[in-house]
Amino acid sequence: MNKIKAAVLGATGTVGQRFIQLLDHHPFFEITALAASEKSVGKKYGDIVQWKLDTLIPDRLANMIIQPCEPSLDARVAFSGLDSYVAGEIELAFASKGYAVVSNSKNYRMAEDVPLVYPEINADHLALIDVQKKNRGFKDGFIVTNSNCSIMAFLNIIHVLDRDFGVDKMTAVTMQAISGAGYPGVASLDVLGNVVPFVGGEEEEKIRTEPLKILGKLNHHRIELSKIIISPSVNRVPVLDGHLAAVSVKLKNKTTVEDIKERLREFKSIPQELELPLAPKRPIIVHEAINRPQPRLDIHLEKGMAVSVGRIRPCEVLDFKFTCLVHNTIRGAAGAAVLNAELLYAKKLL
Amino acid sequence: MNKIKAAVLGATGTVGQRFIQLLDHHPFFEITALAASEKSVGKKYGDIVQWKLDTLIPDRLANMIIQPCEPSLDARVAFSGLDSYVAGEIELAFASKGYAVVSNSKNYRMAEDVPLVYPEINADHLALIDVQKKNRGFKDGFIVTNSNCSIMAFLNIIHVLDRDFGVDKMTAVTMQAISGAGYPGVASLDVLGNVVPFVGGEEEEKIRTEPLKILGKLNHHRIELSKIIISPSVNRVPVLDGHLAAVSVKLKNKTTVEDIKERLREFKSIPQELELPLAPKRPIIVHEAINRPQPRLDIHLEKGMAVSVGRIRPCEVLDFKFTCLVHNTIRGAAGAAVLNAELLYAKKLL
Amino acid sequence: MNKIKAAVLGATGTVGQRFIQLLDHHPFFEITALAASEKSVGKKYGDIVQWKLDTLIPDRLANMIIQPCEPSLDARVAFSGLDSYVAGEIELAFASKGYAVVSNSKNYRMAEDVPLVYPEINADHLALIDVQKKNRGFKDGFIVTNSNCSIMAFLNIIHVLDRDFGVDKMTAVTMQAISGAGYPGVASLDVLGNVVPFVGGEEEEKIRTEPLKILGKLNHHRIELSKIIISPSVNRVPVLDGHLAAVSVKLKNKTTVEDIKERLREFKSIPQELELPLAPKRPIIVHEAINRPQPRLDIHLEKGMAVSVGRIRPCEVLDFKFTCLVHNTIRGAAGAAVLNAELLYAKKLL
Amino acid sequence: MNKIKAAVLGATGTVGQRFIQLLDHHPFFEITALAASEKSVGKKYGDIVQWKLDTLIPDRLANMIIQPCEPSLDARVAFSGLDSYVAGEIELAFASKGYAVVSNSKNYRMAEDVPLVYPEINADHLALIDVQKKNRGFKDGFIVTNSNCSIMAFLNIIHVLDRDFGVDKMTAVTMQAISGAGYPGVASLDVLGNVVPFVGGEEEEKIRTEPLKILGKLNHHRIELSKIIISPSVNRVPVLDGHLAAVSVKLKNKTTVEDIKERLREFKSIPQELELPLAPKRPIIVHEAINRPQPRLDIHLEKGMAVSVGRIRPCEVLDFKFTCLVHNTIRGAAGAAVLNAELLYAKKLL
Repeated sequence: MNKIKAAVLGATGTVGQRFIQLLDHHPFFEITALAASEKSVGKKYGDIVQWKLDTLIPDRLANMIIQPCEPSLDARVAFSGLDSYVAGEIELAFASKGYAVVSNSKNYRMAEDVPLVYPEINADHLALIDVQKKNRGFKDGFIVTNSNCSIMAFLNIIHVLDRDFGVDKMTAVTMQAISGAGYPGVASLDVLGNVVPFVGGEEEEKIRTEPLKILGKLNHHRIELSKIIISPSVNRVPVLDGHLAAVSVKLKNKTTVEDIKERLREFKSIPQELELPLAPKRPIIVHEAINRPQPRLDIHLEKGMAVSVGRIRPCEVLDFKFTCLVHNTIRGAAGAAVLNAELLYAKKLL
Repeated sequence: MNKIKAAVLGATGTVGQRFIQLLDHHPFFEITALAASEKSVGKKYGDIVQWKLDTLIPDRLANMIIQPCEPSLDARVAFSGLDSYVAGEIELAFASKGYAVVSNSKNYRMAEDVPLVYPEINADHLALIDVQKKNRGFKDGFIVTNSNCSIMAFLNIIHVLDRDFGVDKMTAVTMQAISGAGYPGVASLDVLGNVVPFVGGEEEEKIRTEPLKILGKLNHHRIELSKIIISPSVNRVPVLDGHLAAVSVKLKNKTTVEDIKERLREFKSIPQELELPLAPKRPIIVHEAINRPQPRLDIHLEKGMAVSVGRIRPCEVLDFKFTCLVHNTIRGAAGAAVLNAELLYAKKLL
Repeated sequence: MNKIKAAVLGATGTVGQRFIQLLDHHPFFEITALAASEKSVGKKYGDIVQWKLDTLIPDRLANMIIQPCEPSLDARVAFSGLDSYVAGEIELAFASKGYAVVSNSKNYRMAEDVPLVYPEINADHLALIDVQKKNRGFKDGFIVTNSNCSIMAFLNIIHVLDRDFGVDKMTAVTMQAISGAGYPGVASLDVLGNVVPFVGGEEEEKIRTEPLKILGKLNHHRIELSKIIISPSVNRVPVLDGHLAAVSVKLKNKTTVEDIKERLREFKSIPQELELPLAPKRPIIVHEAINRPQPRLDIHLEKGMAVSVGRIRPCEVLDFKFTCLVHNTIRGAAGAAVLNAELLYAKKLL
Repeated sequence: MNKIKAAVLGATGTVGQRFIQLLDHHPFFEITALAASEKSVGKKYGDIVQWKLDTLIPDRLANMIIQPCEPSLDARVAFSGLDSYVAGEIELAFASKGYAVVSNSKNYRMAEDVPLVYPEINADHLALIDVQKKNRGFKDGFIVTNSNCSIMAFLNIIHVLDRDFGVDKMTAVTMQAISGAGYPGVASLDVLGNVVPFVGGEEEEKIRTEPLKILGKLNHHRIELSKIIISPSVNRVPVLDGHLAAVSVKLKNKTTVEDIKERLREFKSIPQELELPLAPKRPIIVHEAINRPQPRLDIHLEKGMAVSVGRIRPCEVLDFKFTCLVHNTIRGAAGAAVLNAELLYAKKLL
């Protein structure tokens, strides 16, 4: 089988590094180009990158010469880990030149004709690709995005609850890892032995809005946004990887803690059916221990692609509450994009 | 002026150490006895204590010989930082022998005839002392308690909101410092670079119930519990000192963010009027910066006796939300007890 | 091929947990028994262990019933992660009943007839097994040990330098991870945001002496201790896994930084020749980056079995200095023992 | 008494912030001007500074308008916390216009005619001011500097040892706090749960050379550098404040651990005799506890102006070894400069 040629845009950033780690020896994709900002162009990747992962840079890629982020790369898919202040223009350029852009950047997430996809929830939203092509005059190219990392901590849990019991409202207090801010990102003087009750980049705005699109319904080529009301309070904590969220939900229908646990445990969806390479066998892992999930212990489950949930119990103010966890740079970022690309591949959209 | 003689029970523990730090050179009290468990008795305090504060042990106390926790100490007030599994019996023994027991332990907090006091809120609850004396046949002795540390992060804020607008319900997600667990307390293997979504010792139960007593009304020698519904979710974070809480409230009456800020800023009460030595001039410090309060930066304000609050804003699910912070071992524990004792002194109850 | 039956003694401890992680699906060994202290006996492993690794407990072992640490276990090899205050007696009992005891405990490390083995350095010391059997009247049983974790940061580096240039003296300032102290081990109140310039358990004494035996020569059934003088200064740092050491050495013969790097890079030995399953392909990884090795980035190289070294440069006081790093619970503890067992297997001593 | 007017150059930086904290209500000095880089000029200090200390910005200074770093400020003394890439030119400009520049920057530390002063050691080096004035044609202005923060951990200890026993050589392995790198400084992704065996800015070069000037002798208007050979190995650790160093020394004359302790304990010098406001009563605090000094517990002793030393014991390779500690932003930076200014004041050099 011939692998699909893949470029990584923003290859030197922390999301770009995860793309490289996850795409090395991938069964569907082969990295054929690394692109980054001007100051890195023309240099060997291994010489210029400030590699922050605890695995070695794959040799072949360490020796690859970095190219500019221009749509002349030898690739079919462009994985974008670009910073949002440049992603808008560059991703558009690539899509218009026929590349399938699989983006982790925020720029087009809420655009009406761009799918914002969490494969276990709304794989059908890929139908927007046709709308997008028509709207924008693209031929082979298009943009597909994944959501902000912090909402991934609760997204498929809320999806199951909404599907089975109807979710009316929810509060989410996040405790987010430093890797979510990239590199250099959070200053150690700010976060060491400290908690900062704020995350920049309009984090709370994203948490309020992005889930509504993902949980929305495709209707006549448009997404009808979900009506769930979300109240976020974000915090940065001195944790390397793993966004934790304390969530309370108000449901439309009655249920029990045991029933919720069963629904979450049984949850499987299209990525599992398609046996996509990066799909977690169990998308949601329900913990029974009173003090779980914990970032240090639980982010690596299912290779960082499963979400953990624990402490599911009645809420005195809303209906139920729980704590949930996502590996913010795998399932919450680069892994999400790669799973989106795998879905595109399996749906023969590449 | 003659100072009141004070004993510290549980002097070697972390709360006991804070008592010693706060009572050294205190204008009302003078430490005349240190008491601890059997294995320390007869030894010099400085030789046996595992001192965990960043100030020196006062010389005079370092040389003091530790006595047993028995009601034969030369003191009028007994500050108790005892572990709850022994505090019940010992505090009772001291009270029945005529000591004024000012306790940080949980054992008698919810007892109907024991005042659970936060001086800015319910100084009038000290009237329970007479009930207690009558009930239990105490002559000069009695027990006064302060609450659990984590609720102190929001207690006087909720008091002001309740007084002015009526509080119906609230959620509180805490991010609690390790010093709250004493020594050795939390294992570093559990909390370093991690968040544990649980705190032992029935922390959530305390958060649900203790505020109801403090915010309750004294009525015919009994406390009518407040009816506020509280939904807590507790977390342990790798922070040395400072419990942070993300709180949302549902109010009975309408108000605005600006109005709330003004009420909180203006709040003063009995300890401020009495100019008690440890009373913060401003019990509640309202922060305007988008990323405050933070444990590292804000716990020392007003010598650790003020509470900080910031990010006051509308809540999409309830009415308003904010983040608040208390120095858990000063205002949240030993400092709270000392302030209670200062109140007793000023009220001529010692 | 039939796998060798293996028991894990001290299975619930942190070293025991690593044994279980490393022996799961091992090509030579199969865990057939888990043993721990009395309070765990009779219970399912998964129900009683406080699992602190970020992988799942293998299902088969989670369901295994814990047995007492008595020499009636169905196994040929007993991997011992026992605490030293019980290891002495128990390991002796197992050896005398015919078990091959592969121990990470300190009790017999310096015994004259017990091999203290680092397979890349002194595989020939296994000849002491015969001496041991004769001395102690063992038939099939024997004890083989590995060294303290902190010396593993520099041991094979010093071995190469000593072999090629002669090492006269060395200083080693260690910065040791908290996992080295087991669980609950180091209190978070002691180490969070702090460095403690001390490690209990006679750590400095072990650093001074254990290398002398490993680097010693087998001569007429006895080990002639190496004469290298070692000056250790140990520190505990807030790092999860990975002991770092800043080392300076005085050599007997002249050499250059480049020559040293080359010798270290080329170093291979018996485990590599025998292709033992856990043997690192490159036992010593020489880093060129000015700021490496770092615990967070480098402990996982070669599955935690390689040692990293960097900043090799002249020393103004002795001859050369460098910084080196070992994964203290893999290469420095459980992995070291498993590699010893693999060597025993390959040498047909099991 | 009229206070001396003082300007703070680089007022928004982390050293500048400490200057403001230490000079607020200072008996000799009064801040009359705050200066910073162009982007801050014209703004209120409190509006623009990213204040990172756990005390409040003094009200008067929060409202002060920031001026450019040009020698037209209303002040006699200019405290410089400038970054080294601008300090050279600016400090020279101020000195040539008649300001007494008391600098924490590295630019002129090693200049032959600039005093590099540690008041307990080499107050007599202030005689270089006359040389400097003559050399450079300054009338009233001059530059006085203090050393790099990390050497302050051991500087007065080595001074006492050198004075009494002669120091021949020494090794120093530092474990340095993040605040030493300013703000934003060290990325949390680099240092959280990690140790980096490197500190930028030629830290090791400074450690090798700056002590030689401070410990040198003034001889005919020149400093004869000390001949002590220093081998440094620097590390960055996840500690907020407090540089720790593990030091070994080779002495010229014999002595004992007890004798060393006594000499260090007794050490007092000119700042103590002059009772300078910021002078520690005990410049060197000798700890007897086996696990001290520790950054978290010991940096605040004597208001951050004392150095702590512990674990003094024989060294197996050199003669003696010990662990020492300095508060790197107080005694190691801003406090050192303020003490220098106090010395200048007391010596009537302002």
